[in-house]
Amino acid sequence: MFGLFGRLTAKPGWRDALVEVLLEASRGVAEVEGCHLYVVSTSPDDPDTAWVFEVWETQEAHAASLRYDTARALIKRALPLLAGPPESGQTLTPVGGLGLTNYS
Amino acid sequence: MFGLFGRLTAKPGWRDALVEVLLEASRGVAEVEGCHLYVVSTSPDDPDTAWVFEVWETQEAHAASLRYDTARALIKRALPLLAGPPESGQTLTPVGGLGLTNYS
Repeated sequence: MFGLFGRLTAKPGWRDALVEVLLEASRGVAEVEGCHLYVVSTSPDDPDTAWVFEVWETQEAHAASLRYDTARALIKRALPLLAGPPESGQTLTPVGGLGLTNYS
Repeated sequence: MFGLFGRLTAKPGWRDALVEVLLEASRGVAEVEGCHLYVVSTSPDDPDTAWVFEVWETQEAHAASLRYDTARALIKRALPLLAGPPESGQTLTPVGGLGLTNYS
C-alpha cells in the first residue's frame, strides 16, 4: 500500500473553501479504483492549515488518479486558494489497523 | 472529532516488533467506544520509523482509551522497543472524507 500525509496552507480566510474542495476530491476518489482512505482535517493550531491523509492500493493508483479530468479540475480550483505551492508531505507504507481491516 | 498523526522511532532492528504491538493496539481500540481510525504505517525513507494516524470521536475518548489495562500493557511492551520518548505528533481536527463517510 501507499500512503501520504500532507499539509496545504490556505491564503488567510480561505481554508474553509479549500476544505470544501478537498471533501469534493474525497468523494471523487471514493469512485476511483484503489483508494482506501482520504481523510481531510483542519488544524487546531493554525486557522489556515488543512491536512490530508491518503491510503492507496499502490503508488501508481495514486498517480493515475491525479490525471483524471475531475481531479485536474479540482486541483485548478484549489491552487488559487493556497498561500504557496503544496508541500510534498510524508510518504507512508500503510501496513494495517482499524480502517484498513483487510490488512491487519 | 479529534485526530493524531504521530511518529515512533524504534531501536535499530526493532521496528517490526513495534509494528506488531501497534497492530495489536489497533485491534484493541476497535473494541473501544469512539475510535474511528487507527492506521499503522512504516516509512519508505527510514527503516526504524512507524507512523500512527488516529481519529477519535472526542479528545476525551482518546485520553480515556489510554487508561485501559490493555492499553497500559501495550504501552509497557512498546516503550523498551523505542529509541526515545514518543514524539507528541500533529494534533488534527478531522472533518470528513473517504473512511469517515458519515462526516463528509
